[in-house]
Amino acid sequence: MKKLINAPETVLAESLSGFAAAHADLVVLGEENKFVRRLNPTPGKVALISGGGSGHEPLHAGFVGLGMLDAACPGQVFTSPTPDQMLAAAAAVDQGAGTLYIVKNYEGDVMNFEMAAEMAEGAVATVVTDDDVAVETSTWSTGRRGVAGTLVVEKVVGAAAETGADLAALQALGREVNARTRSMGVALTSCTVPAAGSPTFQLGDDEMEMGVGIHGEPGRRRVKLMAADAIADEMVSAITADFGADAGGPALLLVNGFGGTPAMELYLMYHAARARLEKAGFRIERSLVGNYVTSLEMAGCSLTVTRLTDDIARGWDAPVHTAALRWGV
Amino acid sequence: MKKLINAPETVLAESLSGFAAAHADLVVLGEENKFVRRLNPTPGKVALISGGGSGHEPLHAGFVGLGMLDAACPGQVFTSPTPDQMLAAAAAVDQGAGTLYIVKNYEGDVMNFEMAAEMAEGAVATVVTDDDVAVETSTWSTGRRGVAGTLVVEKVVGAAAETGADLAALQALGREVNARTRSMGVALTSCTVPAAGSPTFQLGDDEMEMGVGIHGEPGRRRVKLMAADAIADEMVSAITADFGADAGGPALLLVNGFGGTPAMELYLMYHAARARLEKAGFRIERSLVGNYVTSLEMAGCSLTVTRLTDDIARGWDAPVHTAALRWGV
Repeated sequence: MKKLINAPETVLAESLSGFAAAHADLVVLGEENKFVRRLNPTPGKVALISGGGSGHEPLHAGFVGLGMLDAACPGQVFTSPTPDQMLAAAAAVDQGAGTLYIVKNYEGDVMNFEMAAEMAEGAVATVVTDDDVAVETSTWSTGRRGVAGTLVVEKVVGAAAETGADLAALQALGREVNARTRSMGVALTSCTVPAAGSPTFQLGDDEMEMGVGIHGEPGRRRVKLMAADAIADEMVSAITADFGADAGGPALLLVNGFGGTPAMELYLMYHAARARLEKAGFRIERSLVGNYVTSLEMAGCSLTVTRLTDDIARGWDAPVHTAALRWGV
Repeated sequence: MKKLINAPETVLAESLSGFAAAHADLVVLGEENKFVRRLNPTPGKVALISGGGSGHEPLHAGFVGLGMLDAACPGQVFTSPTPDQMLAAAAAVDQGAGTLYIVKNYEGDVMNFEMAAEMAEGAVATVVTDDDVAVETSTWSTGRRGVAGTLVVEKVVGAAAETGADLAALQALGREVNARTRSMGVALTSCTVPAAGSPTFQLGDDEMEMGVGIHGEPGRRRVKLMAADAIADEMVSAITADFGADAGGPALLLVNGFGGTPAMELYLMYHAARARLEKAGFRIERSLVGNYVTSLEMAGCSLTVTRLTDDIARGWDAPVHTAALRWGV
């Protein structure tokens, strides 16, 4: 295992300390590293909390700040955070207007956020993201997995929360954005969880995993490495087929790197995917390219398409100031 | 070679097309992909042009926009752009106030930018960056290499250009920022140039290259993999020793990923480096952590320290709107 670390046990704490110090103008680290919260929350708004296993950075802590999350709860690498983390986070950021949990659809995450919701004192609602079209059930999920589309949900719901939308409206908006969002990923290499010390899965030198999950879970098929255009064909086809009769119209395209793929290749995939989506009737009106929902150092990427409404586009464009996404401020 | 590409010959063109399409609100691609230029240059200002071999994205095209570069000339991967590219870029963005070339210190780059300067019609000045303390001369450089500190030079000089500073003042400022900046890198893995098809250099499973260049050039020594703290010790020592009596005071710390290292590890390195720099008398007043000056998919990172003045800090804080850096707008 080749990593810039001291010891597997201390990776998360040291990394969070670095994150909090580098972004001290934006965030504060909760006690015992239970959560990362906004330094200056907007008064009176619904509190937005997300979280999940670490190893997907910048998701979620990198999305804490104006116009997105109020807090993020980091679990150990690829391991759900615990209910006491969500409760501590909620206690720190709840302003009396209620708390919305945004949860990726993995059994541990869903269970722990549910438990926290039951134990919470104030009003709590939940949005579960499940944008990955690759497989219907997977290693850690019943139903589809929540992947990079979670970023779009957090951004758009975060913008609406800033404008004073109430808990029920934010939950409905989050569910709408999730329902209009589809993702599909491909891995060229595996990734290594520090505590495990060896790759999560094995891929031959000439193989790739089509439809991979963000923890290296199996996707649709293990195949020989293909050209970027052929990969884009398969990923875009999976997404458009899943949209079915709804395919087409104004859309946001997110090309998300898994951590080990250079920007040059991500933009090449953007080029290939965009052409195919346009052919399928989409108009790409918003774009984001980069490492946002990663799988440690995995090489590969995912495509995420959100069918825009005027409201969703407005929410996307609204000011945001977080460690990983910033515009308009 | 596992890459998301179609063919080595078309990587650059397809990637640039994707980049230009994803950021059509910011940039335009010049004919024959000779350069990437700002869509809406600020009228009357000195034109800032940089460039170099591709494979270091987002450097330089990702820094084209308000408050940084007016144009960037992309060479083939790890290969200098040609003088006709700089001339075409200058013709497109020169507004009569002169052109400043910002050039990383590699023989091909320096030679080709010099040739372009000689052939140029308007006033041209050049700033050569050479912030890498690892080695005094290297594979492609006489004198030190220009590495991630180039970002700081481009940001601070770009801000001054927006405020109307003249060519001589910008050149002097660029030289000052470069003189106050030191970098040092480490590689845990090699990288593969698409046209070559095999790794640029060989590293054993338990080895790293301390002081590596951004093209995988040899550094100071090939050693067994060390813990992050020991790596930070050596990198920070090299930087502070090189500053000599000037070490200490207000500083900017950039922890730059080479492309294959996850954010989690970069923040861990930030944590380790910051503590050591503070012990050496620096006050870290500005921070940036992420993949900015990469070496394709190389795992590893560099530390860059700039000794701040009030002017340099102001230039760093000034609004910027590019594909890779954005704040205040």
